[in-house]
Amino acid sequence: MVFPPLREELQGLAPYGAPQVSLERAPVQLNTNENPYGPSPACADDVAESVRRAATTLNRYPDREHVELRAALAAYLTRDTEPTRGFAIDPAQVWAANGSNEVMLQLLQAFGGPGRRALSFAPTYSMYPEYARDTSTEWVQGRREDDFTLDLDAARALVLEQRPSVILLPSPNNPTGTALAPEAVGVLCEAAASYEPCGLVVIDEAYGEFRRAGTPSALELLPEHRNLVVTRTMSKAFALAGARLGYLAADPAICDAIRVVRLPYHLSAVTQAVALAALRHAPELLGKVDDLRAERDRTVESLRAKGLTVADSDANFVLFGTFADRHDTWQRLLDRGVLVRETGPEGWLRVSVGTPEEMMAFDTALDDVLAHEPAPGTRNEEVSTR
Amino acid sequence: MVFPPLREELQGLAPYGAPQVSLERAPVQLNTNENPYGPSPACADDVAESVRRAATTLNRYPDREHVELRAALAAYLTRDTEPTRGFAIDPAQVWAANGSNEVMLQLLQAFGGPGRRALSFAPTYSMYPEYARDTSTEWVQGRREDDFTLDLDAARALVLEQRPSVILLPSPNNPTGTALAPEAVGVLCEAAASYEPCGLVVIDEAYGEFRRAGTPSALELLPEHRNLVVTRTMSKAFALAGARLGYLAADPAICDAIRVVRLPYHLSAVTQAVALAALRHAPELLGKVDDLRAERDRTVESLRAKGLTVADSDANFVLFGTFADRHDTWQRLLDRGVLVRETGPEGWLRVSVGTPEEMMAFDTALDDVLAHEPAPGTRNEEVSTR
Repeated sequence: MVFPPLREELQGLAPYGAPQVSLERAPVQLNTNENPYGPSPACADDVAESVRRAATTLNRYPDREHVELRAALAAYLTRDTEPTRGFAIDPAQVWAANGSNEVMLQLLQAFGGPGRRALSFAPTYSMYPEYARDTSTEWVQGRREDDFTLDLDAARALVLEQRPSVILLPSPNNPTGTALAPEAVGVLCEAAASYEPCGLVVIDEAYGEFRRAGTPSALELLPEHRNLVVTRTMSKAFALAGARLGYLAADPAICDAIRVVRLPYHLSAVTQAVALAALRHAPELLGKVDDLRAERDRTVESLRAKGLTVADSDANFVLFGTFADRHDTWQRLLDRGVLVRETGPEGWLRVSVGTPEEMMAFDTALDDVLAHEPAPGTRNEEVSTR
Repeated sequence: MVFPPLREELQGLAPYGAPQVSLERAPVQLNTNENPYGPSPACADDVAESVRRAATTLNRYPDREHVELRAALAAYLTRDTEPTRGFAIDPAQVWAANGSNEVMLQLLQAFGGPGRRALSFAPTYSMYPEYARDTSTEWVQGRREDDFTLDLDAARALVLEQRPSVILLPSPNNPTGTALAPEAVGVLCEAAASYEPCGLVVIDEAYGEFRRAGTPSALELLPEHRNLVVTRTMSKAFALAGARLGYLAADPAICDAIRVVRLPYHLSAVTQAVALAALRHAPELLGKVDDLRAERDRTVESLRAKGLTVADSDANFVLFGTFADRHDTWQRLLDRGVLVRETGPEGWLRVSVGTPEEMMAFDTALDDVLAHEPAPGTRNEEVSTR
């Protein structure tokens, strides 16, 4: 008997995931865009005490509608947009799940699926086609320009031609760090609203808090476009990758529709308690975001000073290159204890922004790698990428 | 514009979920099969301290493979089966997710989906068709006998005729409480192994720990049937509904296949820490299971003594009836502060087993309801079931 009886299109596929290398082997881990600053002791205490309170009633199911959390997230997003646009985001416009990848899955379950189409522009986040595959949504991909920006006329034309049900656009883009031009969201929302049933434009702002001064958030356009969905995560700016909390802001009818496909009680009482505690410490956590933005800008400058090509970045990572054999460069950085990510277009590497000490270690290792081309015939110890 | 642009088959559907009624309105809540006993203070402290330790590194992604948790769950399942069969369950045979409903979703994403078929036998758990719908798996349903058991010959014939990719069978069944006959699992596994690609037989033992003495667990048959999957949850016996931890035991190739469709980092570091803490308190928590089984048996007897029809139960709930107008009986119990569940075949009601005090309140309220038929023309205050 053929075993396991996996769906044909899944057979032989490797699970998604960054290569994991031990801390001993790579003391400087700059490969998954984690925030290098753990929660402060005060925040960790608040998290633990919040969970202690939740623990006494863990025999009961959690609040399916996560009402308190949605209110806290709405208040946070309102603070993020109020200074520029002066409107409030309502809790009914917010929906949360276990990581923004579950938010994406729910969006595709509700609005994509068999006979429907999802669209993005490459190079972009490599999980998008997997979300599409896992919901049997047809996957269509346009291209970004050589500088990783969108040609808006071409993008609009592709939307009108393909009539996708869901358009997935990260801003800043992963792995390039490129933010969308301010006019892009409006143009694409109007294009996707011009056919029936309309398409949703999902702006994935997982790294939104790291955007440079002057780069707008798509949140500001929510009052103007009913088919706009903005997703965020607490993994990056809130340094909460381990807690898995992603969320979206959109028209309340979108949130209400997701309730039909969400698994009952999808968000645990513990996750809700942890996220609420972290939100109470937002000013402290967002202070670190400012440090990381400054470190990111220094990293871009330093890489350019080495003569490398570097993509402008509004995120907490930097794409740089190009290397004739990027795997070799990646390997030689790893041999020096620095783990970066081999991702994006051929020839490029991505480095996450860590602490100043980590970035100095990266800088030193890279200088060393660039100064010492490998001797012909030298073989490096290989690391499996599985 | 048609808004929101939901998939056609989802339009107008209500989200799944038991009616939620305030504690003020219904002080005795016996509607969602929760364990009435919250974690002890020692267990709650261990949970909080475990989360405090995890909290300091929440900026990092969790262990994708949840290795430590899988080992602890395997050890627990081994203790559950060892006395009878003398074999160990290996961590590679275990996979966990956010509630057994996420486990089911992952199974259907990997082994069901478009062009494939899932089968169960009604009356059964009302979420199964929703999992199938959310994965675009065709849903086929056989029938149980009048006493809620399976006619094994008919069940086998239906499997051979329909050739389902996934067979979902709860044991004990929800909402009837009926355990599968000991020979059922083997017969169905063999039937599902007789075609290509073979079908998986998923025995949903969400309530497995509450089974009566002498009722076997399907875990015992894992060495004999490669296409057998047994799912469990920590929501019920471990009193951890709020923490959302479901898991399965199966051939390691099944677990490995699920890794292709699972969302990356689907299980948070916090969830892993909480589940590990609860598993350390297994003896204490399972002690309460014995109390609940005794209370369940008393409830069955007491309901039968009132002249009601009661399904045999291996779970922590009891299905009883039949009522000419079950909604009216449900409503009149609620008017007396007792919330049960209007579910299962027409005419039946389901009551979860609570504390002795809660079951006494239920008993008293039901006596009162049975003694007082409603006066003609009396209207009760309606409770929305949304």
